[in-house]
Amino acid sequence: MAKGDRKRALRGRAGRMQGGRGSGRAGTGQVRLWGRHAVEAALKNPDRQHRKLWATREGAASLDGELPPDFPIEYADTPDLDRLVARDAPHQGLVLECAPLEDIHLDEVLSGDAARPIVVLDQVTDPHNVGAVMRSAAAFGAAALVTQDRHAPPEGGVVGKAASGALEVLPWVRVVNLARALEDIAEAGYWRIGLTGEADSLLAGALPAGPVALVLGAEGPGMRQNIAAHCDALARLPISDAVESLNVSNAAAVALYAVAARA
Amino acid sequence: MAKGDRKRALRGRAGRMQGGRGSGRAGTGQVRLWGRHAVEAALKNPDRQHRKLWATREGAASLDGELPPDFPIEYADTPDLDRLVARDAPHQGLVLECAPLEDIHLDEVLSGDAARPIVVLDQVTDPHNVGAVMRSAAAFGAAALVTQDRHAPPEGGVVGKAASGALEVLPWVRVVNLARALEDIAEAGYWRIGLTGEADSLLAGALPAGPVALVLGAEGPGMRQNIAAHCDALARLPISDAVESLNVSNAAAVALYAVAARA
Repeated sequence: MAKGDRKRALRGRAGRMQGGRGSGRAGTGQVRLWGRHAVEAALKNPDRQHRKLWATREGAASLDGELPPDFPIEYADTPDLDRLVARDAPHQGLVLECAPLEDIHLDEVLSGDAARPIVVLDQVTDPHNVGAVMRSAAAFGAAALVTQDRHAPPEGGVVGKAASGALEVLPWVRVVNLARALEDIAEAGYWRIGLTGEADSLLAGALPAGPVALVLGAEGPGMRQNIAAHCDALARLPISDAVESLNVSNAAAVALYAVAARA
Repeated sequence: MAKGDRKRALRGRAGRMQGGRGSGRAGTGQVRLWGRHAVEAALKNPDRQHRKLWATREGAASLDGELPPDFPIEYADTPDLDRLVARDAPHQGLVLECAPLEDIHLDEVLSGDAARPIVVLDQVTDPHNVGAVMRSAAAFGAAALVTQDRHAPPEGGVVGKAASGALEVLPWVRVVNLARALEDIAEAGYWRIGLTGEADSLLAGALPAGPVALVLGAEGPGMRQNIAAHCDALARLPISDAVESLNVSNAAAVALYAVAARA
């Protein structure tokens, strides 16, 4: 890893980080992020407005990069931080209060680099899974994650921790109507592949040469019928019948790899 | 899914399930498993000695298959079950007390089907991750999971829930000395590939045609030096530098897919 580069990046953005302090978004609520990777990435994200960092001495020392000298940091003990986060959340001595990120519109993504796949999640409500999908999506260069507002967890600490920094780098588009979003994605030239264990085709054989959107449903119920109907093809991963399905984040990671590896 | 087949299987094994009741293993401790998939798979596993099932009415009704009429089941309410499991564990109204599975020796795995990959985890201590790796390993037909006794979580409910039934079908070999185990694996003809982000080669190019063992370390510290030295090759997955690494279970799933998909 280019540790030095990241350190410089954090220093270089210190001015913007300072600019982000204060509420600036009164009434829009706030987000608490925790865990070293999630907090570090949020501190380095120039688009993130930071309000306050609670940290143990060890947590602050673990940060890759230096905070500006006037950054609002409150030193605390581990039990104090425990009270700021979800029960048993592994905060690693770092809790950052900040504003939610600005909304990103699907149009912005669809006018971007079509070589990067789009990941669409239908009714995946578990924040650990959504965060883990974000992490893999960022790792494999996806253009965005698309979820439906009513059926996805809010931006927050559990998603952020599981995303391990990817919350700050992967555009997360929240739409009101997922079927409509899939129509827009198709109009932009993407081939929409719905992953379901019931499909006849294997994913590797269903991948086109051009732009791809991968659509995954929640474990258990799977993709809704109407969402599957909005896919251009349904495909499955080559798994044995020893288990019923893959975890949704593992399925997403495998599918993203398959897209990245297509010849 | 072949629901009917599974239902028949559970019924067919009912006699063996009954035979497994009672302590039978006094002094060896007990294991509590929870969650529908984990409990259902344990009930269907003829090698699992069952002691007692606590269930809500809804939990019992959700089981795919019928319990033998004299199976020791105690109906309880959700708050009662909450007290039997790890804090906030999603038990889905089902908690099974049972004996741990019999130890499996590496020799038994190495004398099996060499076309199936072996997954070796070095110091992955998080039980969610270990369980998630088991689930993907079973899904992609791995022969076994190998961990080091001192640096892996014990068989238990958290691993079982994340494994979603795979704990019952994937052989889990726990060794005292992981470096020695890797020597035995090499002697049996497996090519040991250590996955690390620092490797020069991509995994796809590092895969041999013959038997493969995939070696993964914990997130953060990664594989220990001595374990990496016991690999025949080190390789990385093709991820962007937007994130530092994949979650270990996602990395394992992708690597297992790459093995399954090799031409």
